[in-house]
Amino acid sequence: MGGITLAHGAGARETWEIVERLIRSKVPEELRRTPGGFGLDVLDDGAVIKVGDTYIVVTVDSYTVNPVFFPGGDIGHLAASGTINDLVVMGARPVAFMDSIVVEEGFPEEDLGRIVDSMMRVLFSEGVALIGGDFKVMPRGSIDRVVVTATGIGVSKSPVIDTSIGVGDRIVVTGPIAQHGAAILAAQLGVNVKILSDSRPLTRTVLPVIEGLRSAITAARDATRGGLAAVLNEWARSCGCTIVIDRGSIPIEEETREFLDAMGVDPLSMACEGVAVLAVRKGFEERVVDELRRLGEKHAAVIGEVVEPPTPFLKGRVVARTEVGGKVLVEARSVNLPRIC
Amino acid sequence: MGGITLAHGAGARETWEIVERLIRSKVPEELRRTPGGFGLDVLDDGAVIKVGDTYIVVTVDSYTVNPVFFPGGDIGHLAASGTINDLVVMGARPVAFMDSIVVEEGFPEEDLGRIVDSMMRVLFSEGVALIGGDFKVMPRGSIDRVVVTATGIGVSKSPVIDTSIGVGDRIVVTGPIAQHGAAILAAQLGVNVKILSDSRPLTRTVLPVIEGLRSAITAARDATRGGLAAVLNEWARSCGCTIVIDRGSIPIEEETREFLDAMGVDPLSMACEGVAVLAVRKGFEERVVDELRRLGEKHAAVIGEVVEPPTPFLKGRVVARTEVGGKVLVEARSVNLPRIC
Repeated sequence: MGGITLAHGAGARETWEIVERLIRSKVPEELRRTPGGFGLDVLDDGAVIKVGDTYIVVTVDSYTVNPVFFPGGDIGHLAASGTINDLVVMGARPVAFMDSIVVEEGFPEEDLGRIVDSMMRVLFSEGVALIGGDFKVMPRGSIDRVVVTATGIGVSKSPVIDTSIGVGDRIVVTGPIAQHGAAILAAQLGVNVKILSDSRPLTRTVLPVIEGLRSAITAARDATRGGLAAVLNEWARSCGCTIVIDRGSIPIEEETREFLDAMGVDPLSMACEGVAVLAVRKGFEERVVDELRRLGEKHAAVIGEVVEPPTPFLKGRVVARTEVGGKVLVEARSVNLPRIC
Repeated sequence: MGGITLAHGAGARETWEIVERLIRSKVPEELRRTPGGFGLDVLDDGAVIKVGDTYIVVTVDSYTVNPVFFPGGDIGHLAASGTINDLVVMGARPVAFMDSIVVEEGFPEEDLGRIVDSMMRVLFSEGVALIGGDFKVMPRGSIDRVVVTATGIGVSKSPVIDTSIGVGDRIVVTGPIAQHGAAILAAQLGVNVKILSDSRPLTRTVLPVIEGLRSAITAARDATRGGLAAVLNEWARSCGCTIVIDRGSIPIEEETREFLDAMGVDPLSMACEGVAVLAVRKGFEERVVDELRRLGEKHAAVIGEVVEPPTPFLKGRVVARTEVGGKVLVEARSVNLPRIC
């Protein structure tokens, strides 16, 4: 066995493989979830614990983003938004949050204060309680500035587990993709572009749609590390179907598209931090899009559908119809962009 | 404002102060807990969320221990044990665990495998499910090896919130103190001693006693960062009483005592990872100690009591009767020992 590579942390195929190899494959079947709940058996955005007739959804993520302050947000804003969104796409109302901050000795207290303020602003605007956490300091040189690990807790009567996605479902994207990834890439390279991260909570726009049209939603994810391509590939693989998307229908801001084109990076593999991807039963997609738009997601769009694999090779894969009429495979690619979230 | 110091992360007074200043003081009263629960209002080992007539206890801690493999355990073993123990001292049965691993590029996959195996061995031996997590990689040089953040979830019908401790209560320690801290100190200094960390879960020895004699237990903590001194000072401060302890009655292994004496470090400020501190209503302390011993905690002992402050100066403070008959103040001291847990 060799050393851990950046690709192992990129959120695409190599991440799934190492997590499967080192962890999931070694967990006995009966310890992958609590009774009546969902956990490593489904590997969704959050785990689900059944308590009486209520489902508690818990999600945990470590935020390592570099730079710590970036156009459109900061690591605190991102930790709160990303965690809330993991709960939202599980169909859970976010109720509580815990932060575990690991900071480098010498980091300015003023900057840490700004980060924490920013995190709390997002939480409190959404009515999420901050109920506890941890605080550790590592000596100078043993951690680069700050890592924030966030635990979010939500409540649901009917959590969205992505196991019921199937042939015929339509794929809806709630907003312009790739903005967070593009903003971080530009910041890391020191390129001056007008792209802001989309870091923001989806509690007021996406959650009401999932709750209101619950029976029409078969799967939901927020497209963070690995981007839209990673979400769609996970879904295609898990249901053994093919997902066909129209590249031309995917919402993306012009500036973002141009910048990523110039960099030679596929926007489909770039992280979003304020975009959900929904699988919707056929016939309900227009209502879902209309509702999203009414609530403020002006760029929500149907971008594709789930079909029977047209060839055995395409089973479990994602295909894009291009704007000029061709078809290309969309893979879950590791973008070589560390510390994106 | 200046920079963050190692003392801010030592788990004693400076940690409480920075958490109060940057976070707790800025959280609106109604967002410090969920309805019917406990959170930043009490700052216990875990937060409590009420669901129907069940209490869900959640705890989050980041483990940064150095070295990653140490005598008596490793960072994975510690993350599982420490998290389970935080739930145990809340009177909660640990049911689920989530890990968030942040690892340095180039870290050997084999070592990561050993860490994860060790973590899972502790979890599965206690019947705790591993229901999810996160996995991130940071570029070489931006994090020293690996940080593991653990989220533990437990269930309780009657969680132990440390707000009912009061005058007359006896203080019980469940086992020999300071072993984890001494083992890490020796490892960091490269001193060859026969001290093993006490990293281990207390599910089978301490939890049954808390559950069985629940009404006699007024407070419970595991004495990690900051050691026994930090726990007792927090309790004394929160109840406005004085805690008086007998130094001679505190269980400690001879080798640990000698090593720490030689180093000039007070064992009362050193971390334990397999020791709980209980406050017990007067008259029940012998039963508690007998039960602990019967279940395997052979060195459990009554070490002190909570009294009315004998002088205004001693209100909220901890005093030790020394082995030679004197009295000294026991302060919550920052030991200059980074990455102890």
